[in-house]
Amino acid sequence: MAVYTEVSDSQVVDLLQSYDLGAPRAVKGIAEGVENSNFLLVTERGQFILTLYEKRVDPADLPFFLGLMEHLAGKGVNCPVPVRTRAGELTAEIAGRPSAIATFLDGMWVRKPGLNHCAELGAALARMHLAGRDFSLHRKNALALEDWRPLFNRCADRADEVQPGLHDMIAAELDYLEANWPVDLPRGVIHADLFPDNVFFQSDRLSGLIDFYFSCNDLYAYEIAICLNAWCFESAGDFNVTKASHLLTRYRTERDVSPEEIDALPILARGSAMRFLLTRLFDWLDESTDGSLVRKKDPLEYVRKLRFHQQVTGPGAYGLT
Amino acid sequence: MAVYTEVSDSQVVDLLQSYDLGAPRAVKGIAEGVENSNFLLVTERGQFILTLYEKRVDPADLPFFLGLMEHLAGKGVNCPVPVRTRAGELTAEIAGRPSAIATFLDGMWVRKPGLNHCAELGAALARMHLAGRDFSLHRKNALALEDWRPLFNRCADRADEVQPGLHDMIAAELDYLEANWPVDLPRGVIHADLFPDNVFFQSDRLSGLIDFYFSCNDLYAYEIAICLNAWCFESAGDFNVTKASHLLTRYRTERDVSPEEIDALPILARGSAMRFLLTRLFDWLDESTDGSLVRKKDPLEYVRKLRFHQQVTGPGAYGLT
Repeated sequence: MAVYTEVSDSQVVDLLQSYDLGAPRAVKGIAEGVENSNFLLVTERGQFILTLYEKRVDPADLPFFLGLMEHLAGKGVNCPVPVRTRAGELTAEIAGRPSAIATFLDGMWVRKPGLNHCAELGAALARMHLAGRDFSLHRKNALALEDWRPLFNRCADRADEVQPGLHDMIAAELDYLEANWPVDLPRGVIHADLFPDNVFFQSDRLSGLIDFYFSCNDLYAYEIAICLNAWCFESAGDFNVTKASHLLTRYRTERDVSPEEIDALPILARGSAMRFLLTRLFDWLDESTDGSLVRKKDPLEYVRKLRFHQQVTGPGAYGLT
Repeated sequence: MAVYTEVSDSQVVDLLQSYDLGAPRAVKGIAEGVENSNFLLVTERGQFILTLYEKRVDPADLPFFLGLMEHLAGKGVNCPVPVRTRAGELTAEIAGRPSAIATFLDGMWVRKPGLNHCAELGAALARMHLAGRDFSLHRKNALALEDWRPLFNRCADRADEVQPGLHDMIAAELDYLEANWPVDLPRGVIHADLFPDNVFFQSDRLSGLIDFYFSCNDLYAYEIAICLNAWCFESAGDFNVTKASHLLTRYRTERDVSPEEIDALPILARGSAMRFLLTRLFDWLDESTDGSLVRKKDPLEYVRKLRFHQQVTGPGAYGLT
């Protein structure tokens, strides 16, 4: 939770000269988002979110992220819709940062998702995958299989500080994943970060998806595996197979999932656990961010999830019948 | 800028059971306010601000603060209006904290106030003083003259770390202020913290006053002096007598200022500079808040302002004719 860059009243007035949104009525920094600075922006035309892109977002990726949101919204997916400038641009600049304005999405994220939330997520995820099929831009996943070992190498020598034996466990798991990773599965645009705080609900109905700043092209089933990890473990660490079943069943009502995708779920779940384990481990050990506004997330949560998937004997463990 | 306490979707749903505001549509933490946690709350009835009161606010003071806002709003002063619960209460509780919901006020604060902004402030300040006359509650100023020396004593031995000679300068100034402070001037409810970030404008018209959590009973002219310090110095440290003249002239069109109040402006300006100098000095040297989310403010800014007022020979220095 953070606002990294402050914007002044006169900077906002200047920015809105480029848009057809009327005069500003209020601007308030929002204490969420760990990558960018976000502001509630109220203008004569309504409520919007103003985002300033900080260092961790490559400006060259913005046409993909913002174009995807616009594309998905045009296909009926509920997500923030970027507002184009008078000149037709998706981005502008304020306070020396690239910026974008998007519509304000009603809803709240759910701290304790239940069965119904997992089912709603499954349906929305499948519809998003289908809606993205004819999106014309392409973005490589910057945190895909081949990126994990280089990332591990940057923090490997200190892994055992977090848990004795962690170094060898990760090294062996990377060997397994690299040798067995599936390649010929259906692929397309995925969100790649659909944790509960990026999914809004209103009265138990899913009202929208936000934060597309990790979206990329990758395996659809890999995104399902990310969601199994993010939504179907209880806070005590136990896997709730009924939640997984709800998520998968509703996903499959919207998009046909091939037998090969189903068979690959265990290794994809191991891989997605590894991806979040490694980024959390790196951030945990990164002293340059000590004392920053960003709260570090516990890598051991994903060690435990990885160990669960390592002992799975087949996709039936995820509630598939 | 901070949100100290997070609130969950289910806590917000529970809270709104006590209000007649409909169901929640969105809640977002706002990155402003150094004393409390503030949230934009959108419900079926519109936009509101939800405030959770943290340690630095005494719950026993809330009836004064919130009652004053309600009273002033009833008299036509633009400020957030507390929303009462179904049971008629001004406060409720969420996440273990006392809380209140108030209306959302349009407007933005001005980083570089101009002459017109100072004039608008002067008029609004006088109208607020008049509107507060028949408010029935009373609250002592917790940072009044008699509180300054005890506060100084808590950080006096380290004052010279901030600037050599600062200890003796403050001690001598406190002697002067205690010996000469005016007592028989008109008094009533003052805001006591009307810095530019607590005053909203829209298109150069003052649209509202916020953050009444220092409000108290004290001299009206002392509040004028606080505003002279907060609004009429340029960022380079020079005093803009034209801004002061605009502020004072418009104030006097709304409320009669006695000759005794005018004569007291130099010492009141010294006193108000001392008050902010001391709280900033204390916070600056307070190691317990190092690394917190609150950005510390430079005490030397108020040393310079104090020195300006010390060399003033009469109220004419503030642009009075």
